[in-house]
Amino acid sequence: MKSVSFDKINLGGFWKNRFEINKNATIPMVYDRFSDTGRFDAFKFDWKEDEPNRPHIFWDSDVAKWLEAVAYSVAKCPDEKLEAIVDGVVDLIEKNQDENGYFNIYFTVCEPDNRWVNRMAHELYCAGHLTEAAVAYYNATGKDKFLKLMQKYMEHIETVFIKEDSADFNTPGHEEIELALVKLYDCTGDEKYLRMSSHFVETRGRSQKDKEGPFFIRGDYDQAHVPVREQKTAAGHSVRATYLYCAMADLALRMNDETLLDACRTLFKSIADKQMYITGGIGSSHHGERFTQDYDLPNDTAYSETCASIGLALFARRMSLLEPDSVYADIAEIATYNCALAGVSLNGKAFFYVNPLEINLEKQKLDKEYHHYRGGCSGVHERLEVFDCSCCPPNIARFVASIGDFLYTYDENTVYVHHYFESDAEWNGIKIIQNTEYPNNGAVKLTVSGMKGKTLAVRIPGWAEKYSFSVPASKTEKGYAYFEISEDTAEIQLDFPMECRLVAANPLVEANLGRVALCRGPLTYCAEGVDNNAPLNNLSLSAQLNANLLFNEEMQAYTVEADGFEDAPFDSLYRTYKPDFKSRKIKFIPYFAFANRGETDMIVWMRIK
Amino acid sequence: MKSVSFDKINLGGFWKNRFEINKNATIPMVYDRFSDTGRFDAFKFDWKEDEPNRPHIFWDSDVAKWLEAVAYSVAKCPDEKLEAIVDGVVDLIEKNQDENGYFNIYFTVCEPDNRWVNRMAHELYCAGHLTEAAVAYYNATGKDKFLKLMQKYMEHIETVFIKEDSADFNTPGHEEIELALVKLYDCTGDEKYLRMSSHFVETRGRSQKDKEGPFFIRGDYDQAHVPVREQKTAAGHSVRATYLYCAMADLALRMNDETLLDACRTLFKSIADKQMYITGGIGSSHHGERFTQDYDLPNDTAYSETCASIGLALFARRMSLLEPDSVYADIAEIATYNCALAGVSLNGKAFFYVNPLEINLEKQKLDKEYHHYRGGCSGVHERLEVFDCSCCPPNIARFVASIGDFLYTYDENTVYVHHYFESDAEWNGIKIIQNTEYPNNGAVKLTVSGMKGKTLAVRIPGWAEKYSFSVPASKTEKGYAYFEISEDTAEIQLDFPMECRLVAANPLVEANLGRVALCRGPLTYCAEGVDNNAPLNNLSLSAQLNANLLFNEEMQAYTVEADGFEDAPFDSLYRTYKPDFKSRKIKFIPYFAFANRGETDMIVWMRIK
Repeated sequence: MKSVSFDKINLGGFWKNRFEINKNATIPMVYDRFSDTGRFDAFKFDWKEDEPNRPHIFWDSDVAKWLEAVAYSVAKCPDEKLEAIVDGVVDLIEKNQDENGYFNIYFTVCEPDNRWVNRMAHELYCAGHLTEAAVAYYNATGKDKFLKLMQKYMEHIETVFIKEDSADFNTPGHEEIELALVKLYDCTGDEKYLRMSSHFVETRGRSQKDKEGPFFIRGDYDQAHVPVREQKTAAGHSVRATYLYCAMADLALRMNDETLLDACRTLFKSIADKQMYITGGIGSSHHGERFTQDYDLPNDTAYSETCASIGLALFARRMSLLEPDSVYADIAEIATYNCALAGVSLNGKAFFYVNPLEINLEKQKLDKEYHHYRGGCSGVHERLEVFDCSCCPPNIARFVASIGDFLYTYDENTVYVHHYFESDAEWNGIKIIQNTEYPNNGAVKLTVSGMKGKTLAVRIPGWAEKYSFSVPASKTEKGYAYFEISEDTAEIQLDFPMECRLVAANPLVEANLGRVALCRGPLTYCAEGVDNNAPLNNLSLSAQLNANLLFNEEMQAYTVEADGFEDAPFDSLYRTYKPDFKSRKIKFIPYFAFANRGETDMIVWMRIK
Repeated sequence: MKSVSFDKINLGGFWKNRFEINKNATIPMVYDRFSDTGRFDAFKFDWKEDEPNRPHIFWDSDVAKWLEAVAYSVAKCPDEKLEAIVDGVVDLIEKNQDENGYFNIYFTVCEPDNRWVNRMAHELYCAGHLTEAAVAYYNATGKDKFLKLMQKYMEHIETVFIKEDSADFNTPGHEEIELALVKLYDCTGDEKYLRMSSHFVETRGRSQKDKEGPFFIRGDYDQAHVPVREQKTAAGHSVRATYLYCAMADLALRMNDETLLDACRTLFKSIADKQMYITGGIGSSHHGERFTQDYDLPNDTAYSETCASIGLALFARRMSLLEPDSVYADIAEIATYNCALAGVSLNGKAFFYVNPLEINLEKQKLDKEYHHYRGGCSGVHERLEVFDCSCCPPNIARFVASIGDFLYTYDENTVYVHHYFESDAEWNGIKIIQNTEYPNNGAVKLTVSGMKGKTLAVRIPGWAEKYSFSVPASKTEKGYAYFEISEDTAEIQLDFPMECRLVAANPLVEANLGRVALCRGPLTYCAEGVDNNAPLNNLSLSAQLNANLLFNEEMQAYTVEADGFEDAPFDSLYRTYKPDFKSRKIKFIPYFAFANRGETDMIVWMRIK
């Protein structure tokens, strides 16, 4: 199967709004902050010791993700000024690239003697992100200078890591280059890049040189504990993990590798069935920014990095290309509309790295004073404009700019509709118009042209308990309804009634015992202190759900007012138990919109009565 | 009011059993472990650098508490061998005491140049515990050598701290000497000791020398942040706090100091109404072993040191002497039967320092691996025979050996019965026989002689929702029922029906929301993994409490089997909410008996349905 590139798709509605905010606010804001902090100037390679803004080992990748975001944005909305900035950076890369092809700011300017020494120093990771940017920029503009520079760099990497095996390690401590090489293969058709990707993926967990090196981290932190095909549990640093799994899925597809696909299926299930927050966040522990154990999903100390949920969505999208099973698009949808979108403020200008499922400001204060709890990465409860480790802001920018990539896949006979966005798309003589208010309404009108004699498969969202179609489906299988198209232009109405619903977690998730989350369609909701005048944990939802919706323009989504209860206060510390609470309304907003109104408490999982 | 000393009381039933275990197992066990670790040999003052068992700054106090426990034990059950050990230690103290009266192992053997330099080095604390032991041994045996040695030491302390003010600090970093000086005053009648105690108490929080010294700890850790009369919240290290509050109550009584009594009342309420676990444990944070904030009572990370609950019971007992209000004996009872008794194993040979209200072995393992949670002090889930910091084992030994002290107080006209122990007591021509199975049954027969024309006041336990007496009370006030005795020998039957009951915590205690504790009489219960084949947090108690009792010989208490529910397992991580659980029985044991059958999970606060 192939996917339809975002650039073949014109967005409207919810995602058009997000795309515009991304273009008008996020991309300029990240540019400004990266300029302030010297990340762009670093490409001049003229930093001197004792100057401020010492280059960091992963600055290349921060800027690369921004370049990639710009490429996607200008592909849809040309912007000469932005292109000029990219061209300027590319010129600096050309100027400062080694004759042998090597390019890395830190290991040229700061530690030139330590190239390819420390597998944890992100060199291959940076190379990967620059390559993704180069491919994206070539696809967007047709300009091939950046692409050729990165091809030259890859020649060097092939020499060092494969032909000569002369680096001090065999595999990167942070995966990324593996999936970038597949993109380079897709762009150039040169199978060498596919072989290089496969080399890095298959060598992982088998290299004695890695394991004996001083920078090898014991355990599963970077997924090098066993060969990838033997990994049965999603483990270790969650961004690293998902980037690896993306490459595994890419290779399984392109090399028709069934056992690698099996490994991907197992790892995907390990995440989706045992280790994922209801927001699509993954990586529950700050310590190691990592997966921990099945069902260990604490809410207040959730790490749940923005980049990790993006990585999960990217992995899920790749799985959708391998086999039609709606679970993949379901998970991509959950991660996208909840944790990933929470990573950026509604105005597009500020960012979360860590996305907790509960904020209790009093408890966090106690945490700091008395070391009871671990608290979030930085105890940040309002989004920041820049982080020292600033992987997430440009990552969400490139993700939103290319969100259309998630919409369709196709093979010779069938087009799969994985998501519902107000949009029109046109490729290979096929045209599909979606009219829908999704994610706010589950009614979708599909107008399909150029598919006579082909099959249209539409995803039945996992959240939809009921649904109906205007024409009968020929079959329903693994979450897709199949329609045989017999007209030049066919119109199919899909209806996935979007009711508010209460969701329970598996009882093995201790943090959520006796609690439910309020969800509607793909959105998970949360209650914030600013809307609810009570300690949030003193509120309970009524099991007899009664909810009213109110559309919020800024969120471009509905807020919810639901029937619930509030525990009655009393004076003593303990007393004989008697049920004692009053009825009240409780206000909820979509999780992605939390923390946009100053520091305030928040919970996703609320007690139920 | 005065209290009736434990040595006037013969115990039967529950406490006789505990006294015997204490005498036959705990006291010998602590002796053996203290011998193994060099704590007794240290009194020879011949330790040399590079030898094992380097003396520690608080070893004097560890042994002192053991000596005190022996004194109480031999007062009731003479034992020549034990007395010989005490006499031997006293001889070594005599031999090694400085001519000027100073006595401290560490600061004579290890750092002789640093006497009275570091207010955090426990010198005055050790002096206090040795003095308590000396008073106890004099009272038990009439031998006054130890007492006189300590009086000589106090002369020295008076010179250094009051007459000359020549120490580098004014008040001890760990309170204890303050209450010991009051005991010395009670024993000798010398008012100098009362003045010294008052000096240390009143100087606390006012001393510039303390605050400017290098060993002053900012904040409220050792209750030196403000003068004691200005302290409105129980704060800081919880053992330190309760020892200070004991001395404040002692002074308020003996000096008839109403404003100091007010301060005691405020601090007592701060603990009982806002900062106490349902087990009578206090000090919720490992970090600083301290009180944190009102209603901050996490269960799994509870610190709740054994010594702190003993300190709370001792403070409460002193408050009972100041004013008849049953809240004091209620809290003493809760702390005694639950947290304090949990500090020692049923066989008397092993000890808990930290007494959590939840053990989840899986979560604790996660804690260590991924730093989610803080875990207990040492992650210990089985009692140990010795700790590096071994304050608790001899503390529980002296506490159990003198438990009779809690029973009665009296003034000219009235005798107060604060607790119900199977016992007979005789003092000043008064004799009281209690026949009861308390804490297992709330029926008490009191046979009172020698009180004709006086008043007997009996405490109505705070847990008793109903009660009846065989004769009418003349009045009931602040939790005491008053009976005018008009016969030479009077018999009064008290009945406090002991039903199992469910107790809720204030909704501001976040950890216990939606949960209840099962209690019966003064006992708080817990469920252990070993008795209940399920993750304990998947169990819920039925709000329609239906409980069966079964007497357990080893515990000398009832276990309980109650109706409840277990959440039905399911495969997926999330699903639409529907109530789904099965009915089942849940087994409970008294909290004091937890962790006597190997490592296993435990919870006190269980969800309710």
